[in-house]
Amino acid sequence: MTDRYFDDLTLGESWTGRPFEITEAEIVAFARQFDPQPMHMDPDSDQAKRFGGLIASGWHVASRVMRDFVDANLYGDVPLLGLGVNDLRWRLPVRPGDRLTVRREVLELVPSEKQPDRGRVRTVTEVSNQDGRIVLSFENWMQLMKRPKG
Amino acid sequence: MTDRYFDDLTLGESWTGRPFEITEAEIVAFARQFDPQPMHMDPDSDQAKRFGGLIASGWHVASRVMRDFVDANLYGDVPLLGLGVNDLRWRLPVRPGDRLTVRREVLELVPSEKQPDRGRVRTVTEVSNQDGRIVLSFENWMQLMKRPKG
Repeated sequence: MTDRYFDDLTLGESWTGRPFEITEAEIVAFARQFDPQPMHMDPDSDQAKRFGGLIASGWHVASRVMRDFVDANLYGDVPLLGLGVNDLRWRLPVRPGDRLTVRREVLELVPSEKQPDRGRVRTVTEVSNQDGRIVLSFENWMQLMKRPKG
Repeated sequence: MTDRYFDDLTLGESWTGRPFEITEAEIVAFARQFDPQPMHMDPDSDQAKRFGGLIASGWHVASRVMRDFVDANLYGDVPLLGLGVNDLRWRLPVRPGDRLTVRREVLELVPSEKQPDRGRVRTVTEVSNQDGRIVLSFENWMQLMKRPKG
């Protein structure tokens, strides 16, 4: 992957990743460590039955999407920094065996006034399942360096 | 812990949890699985040095705060559902050995018009380190059942 600096991005450009599967073992392992609620750990629990079966922790799905982002390596070796996330919405449950696809789009590009060597990028991320339905969406702001001069 | 229903909550009420530590081993283990960037895995990397040493993945910190929320069991057995998160901000790095304390406050209570047996709760969560500085903050909306009649 080639380096991509702030200057190289264009409004509206988008990337779509390769589908990845969420397994039951992953769902349960994450839940035991970070979100030990029955609906994430025990398919036979009343809580899981309310949702029609075991469902992944929302933080697990978000973390797995981060892994997809790192693996995609969209910016090469250009330093970047996540500043924050807005409008994080878990729209539909994610279940064992679901195959998720991540789409990201550039919504806003703001050069820094105080630090002329960098800018801020606002992107929207939409995560769809194998039925093409969006299960998770969020926007995020990220700091990205500009291409070095000379 | 006693059950707490939507009706039992009051605007402005707050909870403060017990401090918990984030270890280097936890930081590295989470990063290997979900956020394999050098600043989260290798203290000697250039990326980590930019931040003055190893720092935790933001998604790790958020997930660890979820664990604190589940352990706190603020609502007993009352069914609740996370609807979304707004204004998630990683304000300062979290480093190995940091001791974090979570404070939550009720900002808004909205009874459901369509489903009179439940309501929506907006809370703000602030996570502080051992120096009393906020490292992470976010708001979230959650659905909570009302106390059953009769």
